[in-house]
Amino acid sequence: MISRRTFVIAGAAGLAAASEIAAQKAAVARDDCVFCRIVAGTAPAHKLWEDKHFLAFLDHRPIMPGHLLIVPKDHHSYLFDMSRRDYDAILDRLHRLEPPLRNVMQAKRIGVLIEGFGVDHVHVHMIPITEKGQINRPGRADVTDEEFRAVAEKIRTRFKADLR
Amino acid sequence: MISRRTFVIAGAAGLAAASEIAAQKAAVARDDCVFCRIVAGTAPAHKLWEDKHFLAFLDHRPIMPGHLLIVPKDHHSYLFDMSRRDYDAILDRLHRLEPPLRNVMQAKRIGVLIEGFGVDHVHVHMIPITEKGQINRPGRADVTDEEFRAVAEKIRTRFKADLR
Repeated sequence: MISRRTFVIAGAAGLAAASEIAAQKAAVARDDCVFCRIVAGTAPAHKLWEDKHFLAFLDHRPIMPGHLLIVPKDHHSYLFDMSRRDYDAILDRLHRLEPPLRNVMQAKRIGVLIEGFGVDHVHVHMIPITEKGQINRPGRADVTDEEFRAVAEKIRTRFKADLR
Repeated sequence: MISRRTFVIAGAAGLAAASEIAAQKAAVARDDCVFCRIVAGTAPAHKLWEDKHFLAFLDHRPIMPGHLLIVPKDHHSYLFDMSRRDYDAILDRLHRLEPPLRNVMQAKRIGVLIEGFGVDHVHVHMIPITEKGQINRPGRADVTDEEFRAVAEKIRTRFKADLR
């Protein structure tokens, strides 16, 4: 198997740029952070959508079906400590994911929750809701893997169709 | 007492512009909406800060001391149905109010909650928190008016000092 490092060294033209990116990633990804590991693909998650800087995946203890998290790929601890540009960018993703998530889950609204004491890596909760009080329910711990896979597939398909 | 209307008519130069604004306001303010009435000053609230388009006031059932709401002055039902410009503007106010609120309440973070089934007028909850789980607590109904006044005065003073 060819390692990423071998591959980078083999591609002389992209060497400087790739090294810079690798160095930058090393500085911001944390092995002890589960969301950094999900981003890196070394921890499991039902991934739904991603672009260069952000990733959306299902919350593992959903308050409601389709409850997802948007995280920056770089490690940041607190939303308001991010640069203004990154703050605007994550809230832009929230705005873009809302219509397809609401539609596919047949929810009246998408509730938004940003707290962050659970995992110390910025995450924006998007919670499909249809009535008052649902957003304050405790997360369910009894969702089967089959249920997770089905809802993930449904949302992923919709995101792929609706988002560029 | 001079009415707002009399005052507008008296100011000939600003007449056209003021009439347009008044007509727009009439179309978007709702008598049956408590947040519209708070904006208009016909329902009571501990107001903390305002600019041309947004108002911040204390939640009347605070999850934590200093729990406030930011609302658009115009009536909108759902955050994601607002224009993109208004969406960006309310999240800009969230970003600007966060440092003084966190500092004055000596909180570790400001939690953010946007749901909206309680009052059908867009409102962003800003909740000073210091540990996991606080944001999921039920709102307190037993805060005295004296406590409300004290915390409002403290926040208002800080906002006035820190925000332009």
